[in-house]
Order: sequence, then structure tokens, then C-alpha cells
Amino acid sequence: MAWTRNELLGDLLAAENAEALLVLAGSSRDPDLAPFLGGGRLGDACVVGHGGGAWLVYFTSMEREEAARAEAGGVELIHPADFGMETLRREGKTLEEIFAAAVRAALDRAGVVPGRVALAGRPAAGLAVAMAGRLEEGGWKPVSGRGLMLALRRTKTKGETEGIASAARATVEAFESVARMLADSSVRERGELWLGEERVTVARVKAFAAQVFAAHGLEQPESSIVAPAEEGATGHSTGTPERGLRAGGSIVVDLFPRGLLFADCTRTFCVGEPPEELARAHGLVLEALETSLEAVRPGVRGWTLHERVCRLFEHEGFEVPDKNPGAQSGYFHLLGHGVGYELHELPSFRETGPGTEAFRAGDVVTIEPGLYDPEAGWGVRLEDLVVVTEDGMRNLTPLPYDLDPRAW
Amino acid sequence: MAWTRNELLGDLLAAENAEALLVLAGSSRDPDLAPFLGGGRLGDACVVGHGGGAWLVYFTSMEREEAARAEAGGVELIHPADFGMETLRREGKTLEEIFAAAVRAALDRAGVVPGRVALAGRPAAGLAVAMAGRLEEGGWKPVSGRGLMLALRRTKTKGETEGIASAARATVEAFESVARMLADSSVRERGELWLGEERVTVARVKAFAAQVFAAHGLEQPESSIVAPAEEGATGHSTGTPERGLRAGGSIVVDLFPRGLLFADCTRTFCVGEPPEELARAHGLVLEALETSLEAVRPGVRGWTLHERVCRLFEHEGFEVPDKNPGAQSGYFHLLGHGVGYELHELPSFRETGPGTEAFRAGDVVTIEPGLYDPEAGWGVRLEDLVVVTEDGMRNLTPLPYDLDPRAW
Repeated sequence: MAWTRNELLGDLLAAENAEALLVLAGSSRDPDLAPFLGGGRLGDACVVGHGGGAWLVYFTSMEREEAARAEAGGVELIHPADFGMETLRREGKTLEEIFAAAVRAALDRAGVVPGRVALAGRPAAGLAVAMAGRLEEGGWKPVSGRGLMLALRRTKTKGETEGIASAARATVEAFESVARMLADSSVRERGELWLGEERVTVARVKAFAAQVFAAHGLEQPESSIVAPAEEGATGHSTGTPERGLRAGGSIVVDLFPRGLLFADCTRTFCVGEPPEELARAHGLVLEALETSLEAVRPGVRGWTLHERVCRLFEHEGFEVPDKNPGAQSGYFHLLGHGVGYELHELPSFRETGPGTEAFRAGDVVTIEPGLYDPEAGWGVRLEDLVVVTEDGMRNLTPLPYDLDPRAW
Repeated sequence: MAWTRNELLGDLLAAENAEALLVLAGSSRDPDLAPFLGGGRLGDACVVGHGGGAWLVYFTSMEREEAARAEAGGVELIHPADFGMETLRREGKTLEEIFAAAVRAALDRAGVVPGRVALAGRPAAGLAVAMAGRLEEGGWKPVSGRGLMLALRRTKTKGETEGIASAARATVEAFESVARMLADSSVRERGELWLGEERVTVARVKAFAAQVFAAHGLEQPESSIVAPAEEGATGHSTGTPERGLRAGGSIVVDLFPRGLLFADCTRTFCVGEPPEELARAHGLVLEALETSLEAVRPGVRGWTLHERVCRLFEHEGFEVPDKNPGAQSGYFHLLGHGVGYELHELPSFRETGPGTEAFRAGDVVTIEPGLYDPEAGWGVRLEDLVVVTEDGMRNLTPLPYDLDPRAW
């Protein structure tokens, strides 16, 4: 059995006139290494791949069982003993020398002839440069494999799509738990939300969500966003932990946990009666989301959908990013992004650049229109995560959109 | 005001005969970039530093306030407009070209003369190699800055030590919460632990801890370990989520959250009467921990403490790693490790290699002896996190050591 994406890798390498891909990594959490591992957890490792196969070198026999998960996916293993790891360690060789031996073993086994080698992974910069030097000594020419790797990762295996769907199911559960908590809160003086004898703070909402993710074995390497009022109206605030939530104000909740791969979903809450402007913006954002979701299918570009949403919001009198890139209110970000081993990857919703061509069946993308008014102190964003199918899309985050959690 | 560690950086560069340090990074979570940021959150960025100063280039004006936090720490800023970022973006330049312009601007501003430049950070490998090529064209010689950067990070600022202490306080709270939960559990048939009408599973304990960390705004990028019985007796199991915990069995709980920096602490629980062997091992591990903690001070090597623990355990009839490196039971890991922006960094407790020289005041290290018996199905590890002081150490994880959570 060959590694699932050998053929695609062969095509991508041919297009760049490269002989092989070389991934250098310090951990299975490296998004360029993970696609080869079938869920295995490793420390330092490297992979050589081309149209004829993929070879994984791992560095310690303690990881034998983890490496075997890669083997089950068609990747061939080069064991520590195969490249003299014990001796290298005993001789006190540096990490650089150990990697050099591992890379040499993999290039040999893969039969990589002199020529261009596409480098990927996120090793320490010094290690990358040292390995590039050694490749040159051996007659290879190291070139950047970043674009190739992103293109390779864009095409997902069934297992990877299921990995995202599984993280999305936990995200749905986390939102249901957060909505229930907000719905159960009582409103006290100055509109403060209280649950039992404690104020409902940003930190407490994050804790509620984190508990659900941890129970599912998911990590939150990039944290989460629970941003009330004007904090939800800027592009970068993740919410001040001790801040209390209030009725009548917007609360943007954006959760993006990772199992093997990421999921990503946003809802905006407002306990009780929303201000008129917030209610109107919510209606428009929901319209933008639903219209966009209906339009998602193979052959459609993310940029096209983004432009359509810009026109809708512009028509309603809001600033929009394609006309005013520096705007700090209205709509000021892209409509979505691809999701995978990284939270943001291909396809891209930008106008030009890598991965901006039309959607293909199997792409996993977010659709996330938003409207914000920092001066008035509210923000609304609604984000669903979808898989592009042959004739449309499958929504991985089927949840209510209501502002008021008591309507959920 | 100059950046806090300029003098040290100057010394380290002189020792390597290098003109400057160049950090290339894709995120403030890069442990080589973070020491320059004073807590600021950035995306792509680079830093050039030498004995005379440090310069941070950030890429988008949306991050102005975040970059200002670096400035407050004495780092000089190179703003996106200073190197023509808007134009580069408008012209659709690649990330590689943008980084090249940023690096050139920083090298110019820092006045770095031709010579060796130490590279650090964890950019995509292809980007590192491309930047190295451009440095060479400009007359610089890129060399690995990994060792230099680790040495620089070993010396912590007051703020960094406080960052670790703060994460450690949340860890203490998480352990108290876990201990209380275990203590409140009832023992049902087959020794199963139940809390209310639910079984106490690995996932549930992790969720309890995660909730505390999220409430403190901490992340768990490397997850956590809740390993019952034989799962706690191997070096790598993090615990099967759905597995139920039982009275009379060991439960190794190892928590390592990150604020800006990591904390790390381990306790082992056993609800009810422990088997005799487990109780004896726990006593020995506690003795090893306490003896080691008493010996921590400047001038003492981690390896020396490790060897002492090996002798204690060997004398009691256990396998030890310095005599039998392949052992799978008894004691089979090092006594500790440094902690900082990464979970494992310098000082090192190994016999030889970088950072194995004696402790210095200000070092932050774990002390974590353990004994394991996979066949009998138990493991014990106790781990404290300490700061080395002028005359000893300060324990950042002051918690009970009792096996039985009802004694906490």
C-alpha cells in the first residue's frame, strides 16, 4: 500500500521541477509532518517523499508504536537503528549531526537523484540552514517547499476530514454548553450576568468551553475568543479574563480547538433585548452567511463570495475592506479561510496569490461575515465550518444563530 | 532604555564570533521571538539584535499596540511603513520577499557589518533557507543560533520568572481542584470512582484541570497527562480519555500549562489503600524529591542530583537509567529539566552537552523523580518546579505529596 497522496505529491514536485520533498520537524505538531503520521505522536523526525513513496525517519525506539501508525498509512519507516542512532547518541553527536545522518538515510532509501529538493517543516532556522548546506554538498539544491506543502495539505484524506468533523462536533457541544450557561444566568444590577453566586466573566465562559474540549481530548493551542462589547469590535482582542458580561451587549465567541486538525466556529450572543443597531447588524450578517453558504460549491472562488458580501454590507451603508482596506469599523476582514493542520491554510479567500483558485470538492473552509462598531461598542460575527461537496457543502457546525441564548 | 539582555547577547555573540542574532518567526508563540516581545502578540515578525540593541520588525499596523509592548522593554521598533510593507503587499509580493525586505531594514538599522549572523526562530524551513541565501548575497554568513538562543533564554528577566510563577500558581489551583474532585468521589463496584452519577474518567479529570487553566487565561499547547495504573508506568502515555479511574490504583497527573511561559508539576494519586509496592515506591520517590530539593543551589549540576537519585533507587533494588539506559521499569528518565518559553529547555540534567554546567541563581528547573512498574501496573512521579536562588531554591509548586487525595 502506497502513501495516500503519493500521486499528488509526484505531480506537485514535477510542477516545481523538484526530485523530492524533505520535511524537517521537531514534533508531530508540525503541520507539515502531521500529514504523514496517521495520528502518531513523535518528537524530532524527518520525511522524504516523491511520486514513488514516502519515508519517515524517527529518532527513538520508544516511539516505535507511534511511528507504526504512519506505516499503517503507507509511509515506510526508517528506524533509529537503521541509521545508527544509538552510536550517534553515545558519541554525543549534536542534533544537527543526527539530523544530517537521518536525512542522508532517507534520501538514500528513497533513491533521490541530484536535483532540486523542496524543504518543508518548521525546524529551528539554524538547523534548516545547516541541512541546506549539507544537501548542497551532496549535489542537491534546496528550494522552498512551502507552497507545495500547502497545496498537498489542501487535499484532505477521508481520515483528515473526519478529524476536522470530530473537532467540529466537540465545538458544537462547547457552544451548546456556553449558550446554556448564558441562558441560565440571571440579570442583576447594571445588567450584570450572574450564575449562582458568581459573576459571569470572560474567563468563566472560556473555562466552560475548555472543559468540553479537554473532555474530548482536544487542545486549544491558539486559545479562544470571548469578546464582549467593544472588545468584540476589534480584529484582535481575545477578551479581558476578569471582565464581567452584561445583558444587552454583544458577546463574540470564537472557538478553534485542535484534535489532530483544527475546527473553527463563531457565534455572537446578546442576553435579553439587543440595541437596535446590533439587531440589524446581526440580521445582515446572518443574511450574508446564509447567502454565502448557499453559494459554496466546486468552481466558486472564495474571493467572489467575499466581494458579494462586501456589496451587501456596502449597500447597507457599512465600510467594506475591498473599498477601504484600513477601515476599523463595518466589515474589515476576509470572508473565510481554509482549515486543516493549521487554523488558517488553503484555500485562500484573497483576490490573488496561492490557493485563490476556485473551491474543489473536499476543501474545508470557514464562512465568517462580521460587522463591527467600536465606537458604539458592539461586534457581530457568525462563522460556520463547511466541507465542499460535489454539489454544494456540508455544514460541520450546525447550530442556532440567535443572538439570545434563551432562544437556542 | 536598552533591551534587558543586550549585554549578555553581546557576550554570547562574541563567543561565537558573530556580528548579530537574526530571529525569523511566524508568531509570538515562537519561543525565540517571545523573549523580545514583553508579552505582545504578533504574527510574522523578525528581530535583529547585538550587544548594542535589539530591533523588532512587525508586519501589520493592526499590531501596533502589541508591538509597543516590546518597545516598553527596550526593543526598538521598525514599523510596517518603515520598510514599505503597504507597497509590497499591494504589489502582491511573496512572504519570502516581504521577509527579505524586513530583514534588510533591520540589518541596516542595527548597522550589522558583514560577518557571521546567528539564525534563530522556527520559520518555515523554506523561508529560513531563502533568507540564508539572501544573507550570503549581502556578505553575511548565516550560522545556527540555536545554542546561543537557548543560552540567552536560560537567563530570565524578573518578568519572565514571574510569568512562570503565575502559571505555577494556576497549576497549584488545578491540582487542588483535581484532588478535591478525587477526594469527593465515591467508590463503587470493582473499585470504580464515581462523582455524582458519572464515572470519573481520565477525560473528566483533564476537563477539571483545563477549566482552571482557561479561567486563568492559560493555554495547554502540549495537553496534559492523567495516566492511571499501567498507563502511568510508561514514559509516553497521556491516558486513554474514556478510561475510568479506580480506587487502589496509581494515577499520575502531570500538568504543564503555558501563559507567556510554561509551568510544570506532577503529583500521583491513589484513592484509598495503595498496594504495598506502590506505597513503598511513593515513599522512595518522595525521599528522592525532598533530598534533591534540599541540594538545589547555584554551583550544583543537575547531573549530580540525577546520579544521587539513581544510587538511592539502585540501592533499593530498582533499575536505573545510568546503568541500564534501555530499562522499561524502575527509574528511566532524567531527574529534571529547565522550563521557560518551551516546556523543556536549559539548564540540562544530562551528563554532557549544552547547558549541563552547574545551576546559576535564576535558573528555573523541575525536579521529578519517578518509579514505575508496567507489569504490576503502577507508576509514581512527583515533580516540583523551582527557581534557583542565591542560597537554595524557591518552590513554585507548594502542594501536598500524599497519594490519597483525602489527605490533601
